[in-house]
Amino acid sequence: MAKSVLLINGPNLNLLGTREPAIYGYDTLVDLENNVKTLAGSLEVSVSLFQSNHEGAIIDRIHLAQKEKIEVIIINPAALTHTSVGLRDAFNGVSIPFIELHIANVHARESFRHHSYLSDKANCVIYGMGLFGYEAALMYAAKHMGPKAK
Amino acid sequence: MAKSVLLINGPNLNLLGTREPAIYGYDTLVDLENNVKTLAGSLEVSVSLFQSNHEGAIIDRIHLAQKEKIEVIIINPAALTHTSVGLRDAFNGVSIPFIELHIANVHARESFRHHSYLSDKANCVIYGMGLFGYEAALMYAAKHMGPKAK
Amino acid sequence: MAKSVLLINGPNLNLLGTREPAIYGYDTLVDLENNVKTLAGSLEVSVSLFQSNHEGAIIDRIHLAQKEKIEVIIINPAALTHTSVGLRDAFNGVSIPFIELHIANVHARESFRHHSYLSDKANCVIYGMGLFGYEAALMYAAKHMGPKAK
Amino acid sequence: MAKSVLLINGPNLNLLGTREPAIYGYDTLVDLENNVKTLAGSLEVSVSLFQSNHEGAIIDRIHLAQKEKIEVIIINPAALTHTSVGLRDAFNGVSIPFIELHIANVHARESFRHHSYLSDKANCVIYGMGLFGYEAALMYAAKHMGPKAK
Amino acid sequence: MAKSVLLINGPNLNLLGTREPAIYGYDTLVDLENNVKTLAGSLEVSVSLFQSNHEGAIIDRIHLAQKEKIEVIIINPAALTHTSVGLRDAFNGVSIPFIELHIANVHARESFRHHSYLSDKANCVIYGMGLFGYEAALMYAAKHMGPKAK
Amino acid sequence: MAKSVLLINGPNLNLLGTREPAIYGYDTLVDLENNVKTLAGSLEVSVSLFQSNHEGAIIDRIHLAQKEKIEVIIINPAALTHTSVGLRDAFNGVSIPFIELHIANVHARESFRHHSYLSDKANCVIYGMGLFGYEAALMYAAKHMGPKAK
Amino acid sequence: MAKSVLLINGPNLNLLGTREPAIYGYDTLVDLENNVKTLAGSLEVSVSLFQSNHEGAIIDRIHLAQKEKIEVIIINPAALTHTSVGLRDAFNGVSIPFIELHIANVHARESFRHHSYLSDKANCVIYGMGLFGYEAALMYAAKHMGPKAK
Amino acid sequence: MAKSVLLINGPNLNLLGTREPAIYGYDTLVDLENNVKTLAGSLEVSVSLFQSNHEGAIIDRIHLAQKEKIEVIIINPAALTHTSVGLRDAFNGVSIPFIELHIANVHARESFRHHSYLSDKANCVIYGMGLFGYEAALMYAAKHMGPKAK
Amino acid sequence: MAKSVLLINGPNLNLLGTREPAIYGYDTLVDLENNVKTLAGSLEVSVSLFQSNHEGAIIDRIHLAQKEKIEVIIINPAALTHTSVGLRDAFNGVSIPFIELHIANVHARESFRHHSYLSDKANCVIYGMGLFGYEAALMYAAKHMGPKAK
Amino acid sequence: MAKSVLLINGPNLNLLGTREPAIYGYDTLVDLENNVKTLAGSLEVSVSLFQSNHEGAIIDRIHLAQKEKIEVIIINPAALTHTSVGLRDAFNGVSIPFIELHIANVHARESFRHHSYLSDKANCVIYGMGLFGYEAALMYAAKHMGPKAK
Amino acid sequence: MAKSVLLINGPNLNLLGTREPAIYGYDTLVDLENNVKTLAGSLEVSVSLFQSNHEGAIIDRIHLAQKEKIEVIIINPAALTHTSVGLRDAFNGVSIPFIELHIANVHARESFRHHSYLSDKANCVIYGMGLFGYEAALMYAAKHMGPKAK
Amino acid sequence: MAKSVLLINGPNLNLLGTREPAIYGYDTLVDLENNVKTLAGSLEVSVSLFQSNHEGAIIDRIHLAQKEKIEVIIINPAALTHTSVGLRDAFNGVSIPFIELHIANVHARESFRHHSYLSDKANCVIYGMGLFGYEAALMYAAKHMGPKAK
Repeated sequence: MAKSVLLINGPNLNLLGTREPAIYGYDTLVDLENNVKTLAGSLEVSVSLFQSNHEGAIIDRIHLAQKEKIEVIIINPAALTHTSVGLRDAFNGVSIPFIELHIANVHARESFRHHSYLSDKANCVIYGMGLFGYEAALMYAAKHMGPKAK
Repeated sequence: MAKSVLLINGPNLNLLGTREPAIYGYDTLVDLENNVKTLAGSLEVSVSLFQSNHEGAIIDRIHLAQKEKIEVIIINPAALTHTSVGLRDAFNGVSIPFIELHIANVHARESFRHHSYLSDKANCVIYGMGLFGYEAALMYAAKHMGPKAK
Repeated sequence: MAKSVLLINGPNLNLLGTREPAIYGYDTLVDLENNVKTLAGSLEVSVSLFQSNHEGAIIDRIHLAQKEKIEVIIINPAALTHTSVGLRDAFNGVSIPFIELHIANVHARESFRHHSYLSDKANCVIYGMGLFGYEAALMYAAKHMGPKAK
Repeated sequence: MAKSVLLINGPNLNLLGTREPAIYGYDTLVDLENNVKTLAGSLEVSVSLFQSNHEGAIIDRIHLAQKEKIEVIIINPAALTHTSVGLRDAFNGVSIPFIELHIANVHARESFRHHSYLSDKANCVIYGMGLFGYEAALMYAAKHMGPKAK
Repeated sequence: MAKSVLLINGPNLNLLGTREPAIYGYDTLVDLENNVKTLAGSLEVSVSLFQSNHEGAIIDRIHLAQKEKIEVIIINPAALTHTSVGLRDAFNGVSIPFIELHIANVHARESFRHHSYLSDKANCVIYGMGLFGYEAALMYAAKHMGPKAK
Repeated sequence: MAKSVLLINGPNLNLLGTREPAIYGYDTLVDLENNVKTLAGSLEVSVSLFQSNHEGAIIDRIHLAQKEKIEVIIINPAALTHTSVGLRDAFNGVSIPFIELHIANVHARESFRHHSYLSDKANCVIYGMGLFGYEAALMYAAKHMGPKAK
Repeated sequence: MAKSVLLINGPNLNLLGTREPAIYGYDTLVDLENNVKTLAGSLEVSVSLFQSNHEGAIIDRIHLAQKEKIEVIIINPAALTHTSVGLRDAFNGVSIPFIELHIANVHARESFRHHSYLSDKANCVIYGMGLFGYEAALMYAAKHMGPKAK
Repeated sequence: MAKSVLLINGPNLNLLGTREPAIYGYDTLVDLENNVKTLAGSLEVSVSLFQSNHEGAIIDRIHLAQKEKIEVIIINPAALTHTSVGLRDAFNGVSIPFIELHIANVHARESFRHHSYLSDKANCVIYGMGLFGYEAALMYAAKHMGPKAK
Repeated sequence: MAKSVLLINGPNLNLLGTREPAIYGYDTLVDLENNVKTLAGSLEVSVSLFQSNHEGAIIDRIHLAQKEKIEVIIINPAALTHTSVGLRDAFNGVSIPFIELHIANVHARESFRHHSYLSDKANCVIYGMGLFGYEAALMYAAKHMGPKAK
Repeated sequence: MAKSVLLINGPNLNLLGTREPAIYGYDTLVDLENNVKTLAGSLEVSVSLFQSNHEGAIIDRIHLAQKEKIEVIIINPAALTHTSVGLRDAFNGVSIPFIELHIANVHARESFRHHSYLSDKANCVIYGMGLFGYEAALMYAAKHMGPKAK
Repeated sequence: MAKSVLLINGPNLNLLGTREPAIYGYDTLVDLENNVKTLAGSLEVSVSLFQSNHEGAIIDRIHLAQKEKIEVIIINPAALTHTSVGLRDAFNGVSIPFIELHIANVHARESFRHHSYLSDKANCVIYGMGLFGYEAALMYAAKHMGPKAK
Repeated sequence: MAKSVLLINGPNLNLLGTREPAIYGYDTLVDLENNVKTLAGSLEVSVSLFQSNHEGAIIDRIHLAQKEKIEVIIINPAALTHTSVGLRDAFNGVSIPFIELHIANVHARESFRHHSYLSDKANCVIYGMGLFGYEAALMYAAKHMGPKAK
């Protein structure tokens, strides 16, 4: 049976393609999500998609994932990376293995972006690979993660 | 007339009983709320219950409490303890005395959990008593707090 | 054509006039907004008004401003000043020049209020002028800001 | 058989009722101890009482507790909270579960009072409940602690 | 009777119009002072002007203001913002309410410019409004400040 | 009636005259105490003397002073200056005004000696005047301190 | 023509497969290098391999890469991540784009491992993907990097 | 021959008697200087007096003291205590022993007042004795200091 | 004549053999002291033994050592290592060379145990050798220390 | 035409030759200035000389240099190195390239001397070369600096 | 069979006997190694000796030790103590128990020498015993360490 | 007899002329060394040249210098400035006076480049003079340094 993956994009990522293209590139969120769905198909992974600017809505979505028996979460937490203990606790709470990824290389940006409330709980972390980061995460999730692998 | 108390549980506490039971125990939020309601009855306290994963919704609820003439708030702010100035300002804004409580002993956890944006404004603080902490808070609220006591 | 300005008031500012009047004064949010609308009329500025206690809703509103071709945003971010990277990213994302203002002089309050995630990205910053700060911001926006001025 | 509890009050608590009553209230140490003994009786707990201004004497008392087979220690470590590694080591040494409590809310006082050498080793911690804190601690000890509960 | 205001410009502001125009603009100190005098006339405020590169001379001038019964001081302390306890003590000493203003947005500059020895004692603070900041300060002084308003 | 003063010398001051004479000089504790008694006589002050190497004993002595109606305490807290919250609480508890003094200039010694848990609560502080510091303290206590002066 | 990639493994990675397998897994350096060579073949990339425990030798190797016209470097700097400014300067010196990768998730290890002297200069960074990280890096190098892409 | 002493009062001390009397008392600088001159007479000390709000003028005065063969300097450096390396270097340069004194107890004020650039170079330091501090300093200078004593 | 050595064991070391045996081992204080006495005999060293949980008592004992002409002190200061300036001053006061030793390797424990108020004044320091540390210290004291060697 | 250079010596450098000769040597300011003038002659550089103990006077002198079309400033800012933002702003304001030099090696002195408010804006910096540092600076200014070289 | 021990001396220890003899003594590395070999003989320990100024060479040597089935490593890491994560990882990698020793008492030297990247992983640590430290380490290794003891 | 000087260039300086020319200029290491040799000839100084990317090799070279009776070392430690305690110890060990120099002004670069492990031990330090810095260092070494001058 297909492995089930949930992809969460955090605050302001709905602006992809228009927001600071020098940092984030010109692809839109729709481009990104189509790209991920196509790859998911070829990897025989079932993928759910979610984006929100509301921390609370993302926490609710993670809780729902547990009920849906999602096996892996891939999350680009965006600004919440640096400020949300609630997201950290949500992952602790549902015990679903997850990958943290960032489109840009946050280490080349402001110092407050160098700390993440999620990284030490994530299975792996990717910075700065642009949209390819989502592909790499999906490949990793498909081949190397899941309830048993943890 | 019965003293009116509002009990607020913050983000991820809807997972109680399933989330990290080694830390939080096996009772669910429903168990907890039933327990509180029973004790409230015996203390002749009227208790309102609220849980949310959204900071904004909790702020809205605190504002509403002022209109409802709630006399004491008991809050387990969970992850928001460490990150929400908005909650602090909401309590400053409504001037309702409140008790901060945590099911686990946060001092035995990660260092970022040792700071609270609420503690210096709370009347009292309880860590690590499990669900009994809610009982102790309710007893204290019933006997020792209220508009006059402040 | 009239310059279009959006005024955003952050968490707990709906309590204006009742919240800590020694710090924030006795005018309500309605008084403030009427005041701003009257001045906007005399400056031939079109002004939109928004207040929310939800970080996510404010981010959504800033995104909408881009679609509405708002030229200047005046924001009193309140508690989010000190905790929201998401707001910072929203302003980075929409590239609308903005003014940060605070009714009280935050430098005379707790030390955690001395840091702002927005100030270095704002065109200008005002602390402690009470409701007159909104008037000064609107005058500045009307005369000195806009897409070309940036 | 009755559960055996030792109550330790640290330096300067012999001044209770006269020392900074705005912070600590008007009840004396004798009032407090009588109160505790009465409640202990109703809970079928045997309670021993100890107060000293000498760190060394408190360490000796904790060692003695081990010989007396005390099952729970309730301690208000007062000033030693912030300065005594010796007390921490004594609790580590005797392995008796303990509750740390403070009459005042230390988070509303000087910043050096925000750190405790005991909290991460305590089962639970109470701040700011006044003398009721001793009652809550005793109830918790009676119902939820002891060698087996640990 | 006209309200009396003293405007102090600190070190290096005599270079205005030539110094780092990308940051400070092209208006000279004479332009600025003429501008202020004109506005003061229309606001029925009497305004005295002072600029010096010497901390001691500015302290002397503040002391003199007390003898002249100056009612409000508007100060752009420039470099002294970050280094002068003497200026702070001078304001404490004469008890004249004052406004701190900066032409540029210091939060977008070096980190040592983010601290001010004056801000917590000022009535209000303005950053980054260019010469309009002086106008806003004068309007605020005229309408909202003075011995009684404090 | 003579003003009653208590002079407390803290840990290791019994070694005076033999301990690090380059720092502390060649006079012994007996020399010092005789010197103080002689001066006390000429100032019509009654002076009690105490030295101990035990923090607890000094706390007990301060408590006793309250019962003896001591009006001023002069204390050289020695090593306890930097480590004892208990001493601070004892002074808070008895509300007797006190002078802190050090024979050597602690600012010229190790950095951990630059912080005192007592200084902000003391009426005045003297460093580095050798035994004359005791004389100056006694003169100040005789002429300028006491229950009314506080 | 095939894109030329250099893979550098830093100190102690010659122990792979034997060193802390709970963290690093059971594959040896030879397994890893064979794996990379196979994938490189299928991606039509030419790959050079280097491992050393000597910082100086790695700097020399990076300099040589410039002469060899290597287009991308993939480096697992291991312990040198946290201590080598020399490596940073070598990359600055040769101006070859590079990917930093770590087999384990360093954010879940000691805090001194959370800082990298290379990350802000790297094109992208991968933590915690095990040997798959090398595959992802190679795919990214093959498709998205090179002199023009920079 | 009379010992020659120079008394320097730093910035804002010309406001004595009017500046923050709750902290500094009601005596003026003239009262203070007359007081010192009277005591100097009785101690057979020759005393020179100087006050300035200009750091440079105080440095010049200290240099002049060397030419005048002043034997001891008593200085209340006021705001310059915390900010002037120049004063420290002036004392290092002229090698005249000096006493640092403060009218108020600076340890009970803002934390930036807890550091002095002079204290470790001073012979002794007095805080919080009001004008009596000048008397104690003069007595100490007369009896215990001077070129030989150093 | 035999070299005279004093061995001091600090707070909680009377619990040896029962306290956290995973860290401290199963030998009791009596075993340790017998062991030391036997070795002292074979090294022709006269050894005095002391253990206390009271900082003041240990300071008194160090003072006594000076009168007894003790030539070397071996001390396991236990918890006082990290908190006692008084002990440091006692060693400074008596000028007897000393060895600091710890049974466990404190660097592998909590970070507050990494600082010692004694180490920079000790002749040498041993961590983590268990009871053999006492033997090594005694051998070193017998062969390499004493009044002349310092 | 001769290149025009201004040499500024900061506070206390008028004491050269008498001030702490172990650090600063035995040559006087006159010796130094004669030395510089002689070398300037041989390098065909026109040199102006200035020394002051007043920060404000040095700022004024730097402003004047702009009017005099001075091409390079060599400055030994002495104590102002560590405390003067005003000097930094003066150099920013006049845009004249400058060399910072110190007679002594400040890195071997107190830690507060390790930070300079000028170094990152200086073209080059010299520490510890004694009076030869002035010669090296003049040679560098003559050969390698000036409006075009910047 | 003899227990096999490897003794590693780090950078600059080849200068022993000539380098800073006030700190390190007059014995040379050859003296030290002969001394250790003699003692090893009497303890029936086989000892290998290694010294290098190259971090990489020491890492290589530790790897080799694993192949040689060395049972204990005694290391004086010298300067690498404070800067080498690579050495730490080498010890983690080979899992051979080790003793860290320093000839001098590093706690009495510069503060950067107070941190070690090895201490928390070492079995035990010795500071300041001079060459006797090597003897003590060898005795401890012979009697108390080895694969089983760990 | 000619004074003997050793010039050491640290890691990555072999890239001079190609590495970041905006910072380091276009001259190569060969140009630099030829330049130095020519000047050395005219100053009657014998100069040895060394460059390495290996910390260990540089330490070895410094040790060799002692055997060669080198009188002065001029070193551009490059990246090792900020990370090598080993180099510091090598200079301490051989007791040869040395000059530290940097081609670029490190104070205008990343903050980790503002700390040097060598500066407080160097005779003098030069930043930002480009290749002329080597000339100035050589002149200083020729005229002002050597075994006697130290």
